[in-house]
Amino acid sequence: MLRFYYAPGTCALATQIALEEAGAAYEMVRVDFAAQEQRGADYLRLNPKSRVPILVTDRGVISETPALLLYVAQTWPEARLAPLDDPFALAQLQAFTSYLCGTVHPARAHIYRGYRWADDPAAIAEMKRKGPEVVADCFTLIDAEMLAGPWVMGEDYSVADAYLFTLANWLERDGFDRDRFPKVADHWRRMQDRPAVQRALASVRW
Amino acid sequence: MLRFYYAPGTCALATQIALEEAGAAYEMVRVDFAAQEQRGADYLRLNPKSRVPILVTDRGVISETPALLLYVAQTWPEARLAPLDDPFALAQLQAFTSYLCGTVHPARAHIYRGYRWADDPAAIAEMKRKGPEVVADCFTLIDAEMLAGPWVMGEDYSVADAYLFTLANWLERDGFDRDRFPKVADHWRRMQDRPAVQRALASVRW
Repeated sequence: MLRFYYAPGTCALATQIALEEAGAAYEMVRVDFAAQEQRGADYLRLNPKSRVPILVTDRGVISETPALLLYVAQTWPEARLAPLDDPFALAQLQAFTSYLCGTVHPARAHIYRGYRWADDPAAIAEMKRKGPEVVADCFTLIDAEMLAGPWVMGEDYSVADAYLFTLANWLERDGFDRDRFPKVADHWRRMQDRPAVQRALASVRW
Repeated sequence: MLRFYYAPGTCALATQIALEEAGAAYEMVRVDFAAQEQRGADYLRLNPKSRVPILVTDRGVISETPALLLYVAQTWPEARLAPLDDPFALAQLQAFTSYLCGTVHPARAHIYRGYRWADDPAAIAEMKRKGPEVVADCFTLIDAEMLAGPWVMGEDYSVADAYLFTLANWLERDGFDRDRFPKVADHWRRMQDRPAVQRALASVRW
């Protein structure tokens, strides 16, 4: 059976929602960040990048959220989680997931993990200070330009929705009033009505 | 005809190589960063993210390198630039492009564009100082764990090779001896033998 390695409160939630939407059978394996399990030899053998999530399949390990989301969509095509046969539409979906992976998620990491890019505590503090401003710029852009509605891709729900929900789910913890981004907030509420999202949220062990 | 907006010395090179490998017909449009053209109203209408590259198609605009690379592979399947029908292999390719887009490219941006994440000049200087160390960690990992050889995916050349080449092409300008990462350096040299790479490099206007 597929094994899905996650840590609570991380972007792993996006892939887990996709797995639930697909009706996939998988086992959850919690990686204990407090115990630094992601830096232990056992985990590094699975993912030398020392990050979650990963999906362990009978052919090997898959990492990186955009890759995992497309993998789920392609492996369970009957769930219709991506426009697999329309190169332009799939590119739009991928542009969205790439933006979350390459810009939004790194922007937010500066609030909590500035040590990745600086050693000086004052520089780390400065990134923490500016971080919310950078994240707000990203969500302002998503709200104004990138969220067709009701779903990211318009009428068709897709794995991109699971990813946006996961990042929007962090906004309150990060000190934002989510309603500052009204379309993102509506989308976040709409997502909560989906049984797959409810199951994913309920199964995470904190 | 497709219009491809690029700036010299950016990650746009990856997509351009892919277009050349595919034998696509496209027009190059140079975005003048020195004149801040990427922040002008005309460009923002095409890409509100204010970044290159973008590909303007008859259905609309595509942004983000991982999205563009898969779009090219899927639109010109006869060029065999990605394992489109093998979800696991495609996920490996996408995990690689996601890592470049989400980790390696942002790491390198801290050397030149720390202002994205800090206002304080001392913090920006600290990111510039640590940047090469972070980039080196990324390329050390790619060299040790992620480059099957002779190509990224092993025997089969793919769009992932164009992306790795583009980022490895920056190493000397960034002050590295490329041979510090021997498999990456071999790959970079092997890429230079490809006519598509030569055409892409020759057509960039600096």
